[in-house]
Amino acid sequence: MKIGILISGRGSNMAAIADAVARGDIPGAEIAVVVSDKPGAAGLVKAAERGIEAIAIPRSGRIREDHDRELVAALTERGIELVCLAGYMRLLSPFFIRSFPNRIVNIHPSLLPSFKGLDAQRQAFEYGVRITGCTVHFVDEELDHGAIILQKAVAVADDDTAETLSARILEQEHASYIEALRLICGGNYRIEGRRIEFGS
Amino acid sequence: MKIGILISGRGSNMAAIADAVARGDIPGAEIAVVVSDKPGAAGLVKAAERGIEAIAIPRSGRIREDHDRELVAALTERGIELVCLAGYMRLLSPFFIRSFPNRIVNIHPSLLPSFKGLDAQRQAFEYGVRITGCTVHFVDEELDHGAIILQKAVAVADDDTAETLSARILEQEHASYIEALRLICGGNYRIEGRRIEFGS
Repeated sequence: MKIGILISGRGSNMAAIADAVARGDIPGAEIAVVVSDKPGAAGLVKAAERGIEAIAIPRSGRIREDHDRELVAALTERGIELVCLAGYMRLLSPFFIRSFPNRIVNIHPSLLPSFKGLDAQRQAFEYGVRITGCTVHFVDEELDHGAIILQKAVAVADDDTAETLSARILEQEHASYIEALRLICGGNYRIEGRRIEFGS
Repeated sequence: MKIGILISGRGSNMAAIADAVARGDIPGAEIAVVVSDKPGAAGLVKAAERGIEAIAIPRSGRIREDHDRELVAALTERGIELVCLAGYMRLLSPFFIRSFPNRIVNIHPSLLPSFKGLDAQRQAFEYGVRITGCTVHFVDEELDHGAIILQKAVAVADDDTAETLSARILEQEHASYIEALRLICGGNYRIEGRRIEFGS
């Protein structure tokens, strides 16, 4: 399974996935390219250091669909079969999503459907939840909405701040993304509406 | 702490709380009365069997605030300090809520703020979440919205139905309600906006 990872920033989930692939923890997976919409993203350096092709396709000043056409072209000419969003901060156009049907995965730092959108960890902290977590899901045309592959819970501690909570969620994001990719690359699942059925 | 429990049906959470109080698992708590808005509620029998005063204050044909005035009168004349909703199926009026400020507790079978309202377990199942749970919270004037005391997570199994999932959540509801009442009766907490701070 040839994977392309889209990033916009530090790429910590990208690095965790790449290292898991390098260790052989995601059988059948190969990270073929890392693409950033921001040329200065620190994650591009991390990818290159790992021997992965790392390219920038700048978004600035371009409308979403034009930008997405270039992204899709870069991914398809490399034979990408699965697109992983890892802190990619631009919404994908319907054109992009239809180019990879049920083949785009995202991670979100809350237990969806709670706390969609930006700064989900802080939203959860300020709401006063006692349990939050992270969600790996397929991407559809609604924000943070597609079929859920995997979730992990993270308890809020009495002495947490939004920052300490975010750090603990991030650890679970790394583990969750790796586990979810293992499930997807194993291929032993069916998508039934919003529900994903695993196992034979 | 004199507790009044409001029910509408089988009263399984009520029975779990009463049995925990009888075992001494909620120090300082006493269940002084169980009130149902439905005269035929099976929970009334369960309460009476446990030696707890069990009364019906029928809602039928009465507007909410008139009904709530009678409920509040019944609770205050018995010296109730904390009201626990346990499957009570009528929304409380602002009059009721203001009569017991920060002294009304509810349990909801989801990880709020996800899946408010009726049939939360099925809502979660159909959404395809991998983790749901239950929430014990103070009651404010918005549905399933007040400050959260405690949450417990329940993982969705691959072979779950909405019914098997509901049954596992119900077990966690019993444990959660008892634990939350232990926290409240211990008195060692402060409500700060939406957040509850525990500990000294």
